[in-house]
Amino acid sequence: MKDDLRNRFIAIVGDAHAATADNDIAPHLREWRARWTGAAAAVLKPGATSEVAAILKLASETGTPIVPQGGNTGLVGGQIPDASGKAIIVSTNRLNRIRAIDVDGDTMTVEAGVVLQTIQEAADAHDRLFPLSLAAQGSAQIGGNLSTNAGGTGALAYGVARDLCLGLEVALPTGEVLDDLNRLKKNNTGYDLRDLFIGAEGTLGIITAAVLKLHPKPSGRAAAFLAVPSPDAALTFFRQARSRCGPSLTTFELMARMGIDFTVRHMHGARDPLDQAYPWYVLIELSSGRSEADARAELDHLVETGFGEGTLADGVVAESEAQRQSLWHLREAMSESQIPEGGSIKHDISVPVSAIPAFLDEADRAVAAIVPDARPCPFGHMGDGNLHYNISQPVGWEKADFLVTTDKITPAVHAIARAHHGSISAEHGIGQMKRDELAEVKSPVALDLMRRIKTAFDPAGIMNPGKVL
Amino acid sequence: MKDDLRNRFIAIVGDAHAATADNDIAPHLREWRARWTGAAAAVLKPGATSEVAAILKLASETGTPIVPQGGNTGLVGGQIPDASGKAIIVSTNRLNRIRAIDVDGDTMTVEAGVVLQTIQEAADAHDRLFPLSLAAQGSAQIGGNLSTNAGGTGALAYGVARDLCLGLEVALPTGEVLDDLNRLKKNNTGYDLRDLFIGAEGTLGIITAAVLKLHPKPSGRAAAFLAVPSPDAALTFFRQARSRCGPSLTTFELMARMGIDFTVRHMHGARDPLDQAYPWYVLIELSSGRSEADARAELDHLVETGFGEGTLADGVVAESEAQRQSLWHLREAMSESQIPEGGSIKHDISVPVSAIPAFLDEADRAVAAIVPDARPCPFGHMGDGNLHYNISQPVGWEKADFLVTTDKITPAVHAIARAHHGSISAEHGIGQMKRDELAEVKSPVALDLMRRIKTAFDPAGIMNPGKVL
Repeated sequence: MKDDLRNRFIAIVGDAHAATADNDIAPHLREWRARWTGAAAAVLKPGATSEVAAILKLASETGTPIVPQGGNTGLVGGQIPDASGKAIIVSTNRLNRIRAIDVDGDTMTVEAGVVLQTIQEAADAHDRLFPLSLAAQGSAQIGGNLSTNAGGTGALAYGVARDLCLGLEVALPTGEVLDDLNRLKKNNTGYDLRDLFIGAEGTLGIITAAVLKLHPKPSGRAAAFLAVPSPDAALTFFRQARSRCGPSLTTFELMARMGIDFTVRHMHGARDPLDQAYPWYVLIELSSGRSEADARAELDHLVETGFGEGTLADGVVAESEAQRQSLWHLREAMSESQIPEGGSIKHDISVPVSAIPAFLDEADRAVAAIVPDARPCPFGHMGDGNLHYNISQPVGWEKADFLVTTDKITPAVHAIARAHHGSISAEHGIGQMKRDELAEVKSPVALDLMRRIKTAFDPAGIMNPGKVL
Repeated sequence: MKDDLRNRFIAIVGDAHAATADNDIAPHLREWRARWTGAAAAVLKPGATSEVAAILKLASETGTPIVPQGGNTGLVGGQIPDASGKAIIVSTNRLNRIRAIDVDGDTMTVEAGVVLQTIQEAADAHDRLFPLSLAAQGSAQIGGNLSTNAGGTGALAYGVARDLCLGLEVALPTGEVLDDLNRLKKNNTGYDLRDLFIGAEGTLGIITAAVLKLHPKPSGRAAAFLAVPSPDAALTFFRQARSRCGPSLTTFELMARMGIDFTVRHMHGARDPLDQAYPWYVLIELSSGRSEADARAELDHLVETGFGEGTLADGVVAESEAQRQSLWHLREAMSESQIPEGGSIKHDISVPVSAIPAFLDEADRAVAAIVPDARPCPFGHMGDGNLHYNISQPVGWEKADFLVTTDKITPAVHAIARAHHGSISAEHGIGQMKRDELAEVKSPVALDLMRRIKTAFDPAGIMNPGKVL
């Protein structure tokens, strides 16, 4: 990029909020697992929506590619520019104010750069719950959560990011600002623009602020770690729990034994709460608006029923908050504990929940046919039909030798998900990772409509090029 | 329309499924309150999605206006053509199959013409709940419910129509069919096309089928009809109920005394369940996944707290299913019971729920300043911040003399809603009724984005012209 153009961009945010030196921009050019790296002409950190809009206006006029970036925790490379070095990264780090909290209306208005955990804590301080919850919540920003329509462990009862947003403020590629900070639950006045920007991964504009939906804070929670003989038994137990507890069932996570082995082996302080090993585990949590005792009584009854009917093989109900957190730790460490085991091929699939057992059976067999000693380590949000079907390398292999089989394993796994009317990206998005595959899984009609929207909103094609479409 | 063109349209569905004679098409040209009437060249009743698509293709090629119509229960004239007689009405009456029910996945796939009540009954037969519920449910069709993003009495706990739909099949103006019958709760693969068609009121395409989200059927429900001294007291009680009961609070409706007077006076079998008159009433319902006794115990506790703190003035908790239904009858008859009282000026506003008392106070005073003896009869979904702020004519006036004051009253009421960051159309949509007002309440940026979408999807401008935009 020529210096005079770069300087025009920098002048919008001021020297203090622009980075061009290699050392300064390096952290923005690399995804945390080093799976995607890129280059950029500058990183700009605007402090106001008007500055974001001015950047996009200049970018449209000069054909400059723009890559929006929040907490840089995305898993599909959506926040990383290509290697050309032509792009400007627009970081939302400084758009970090909570603008308003309406306790009666159950809304919080936040800027895009507020960290998810900060939002959870602010809601909690007002006796409310913001239920979006995911492993990266300590650094992920809400703008990125909305742009990727994040899922996480709260989606079973409360929905995904899309379901937790009422309104948006968006800087458009034209340099205009869409002020649609709607705080109303019901507002039928024209097309739903909000849901176009949610999940668009920064290809239509930059979300600069959002109105979030808050929920009543549960008065009590109860959690259990339960062993089941098979995914079929887990499904049976899910049916019972869902049907009996309805919206009180706030977590239903499935984990394979392999993941518990890895976690106990590698994570400090983690231990298997049961005396013997079982092939599958469920982490279940109930919430009650009444009391912790009420949640606990409901969970006890559910678990007793599960034992009585032979659905459950073993299990432990958390007796204290500390024990509840240690059960959660087993689940949350699942991703990190795979790292010491070498190469891992990861998938983020969803299928109708009734198809989970068949998917697991078929995927395990397909993987074994390609790499016989590969170690599937599936876990995830079974209640949403969403599994992270990850596969660790065979013991003793070279990491690279295993990762090269991604070209065979991933298409096989995705084909099985699709055969069950499933998705190849349940909650992580498309980014650059799955862009080529999108053309295979969406119909030409859907792709054509998406391209028409892209052209209508971003005629200069500056917004996050090379991502999604 | 020339006969040969009309005949080409008729040939797509067959003579037996096309109406052109005045008598046959008359019911499709008139909204049920006779507020909007129009003319049409023909009414076509396609029996398959491919026929709908073929109609739209021919319409695009020949510039023929298309007006989609479901159960013809809309309240803003969206389903009624203009007076030119150039339009073809496409009725979804024959697209009336339930295609599939997935009990584990909590989904039902239905065609656009299935009547809402039929869907509720089918869900119930499978021990599931489809919570969309509204007065016209005996004839309203799901295609129209989705196209207008209908609200109703179930929205407090379960959301509006948008929140109850996972996927769509849509016939596009180009004659293509978008097959996006997604059954997955999590599926982040590209732009959210579904939510563009939901609420677009048939201006972007015709929804031909949908995947609906089912919920667990509550094991028990408990309802109460409670008198409160003021909207402020109703708000206090709402806060208590929401905070204590969370998602178990499935109904929170507010009614003014005037509406109870009208209902008792005009509706067969309706009676005031309380011994004396109070200015305001709340209809509250709790649902429990456990049992009816559990719901009842929770409601009793909540009501006792309300009495203990002086929030409630009087009330009755339903002792039987028959009594529960008679309490609901008071609420559901609220619209119809206004008809014998003469002219009524109606509004469908929403504001943040904490602004409901101020809105009511200010709106009553604004109306009194215009027509001193007018009789406000507000009622509606207070928990959603959504009120039907209807005003009956003064006793003894000519209906027409009152209705002519709409030009003064409606702008005054809408201005008050907007001053509270509210909406002029909470759940009924824009249609032809509020089309001119849309330009006042949406920003030029939002309107421009909507027009770009409209042009990108419907370049020939055939879809429901004169509605929304």
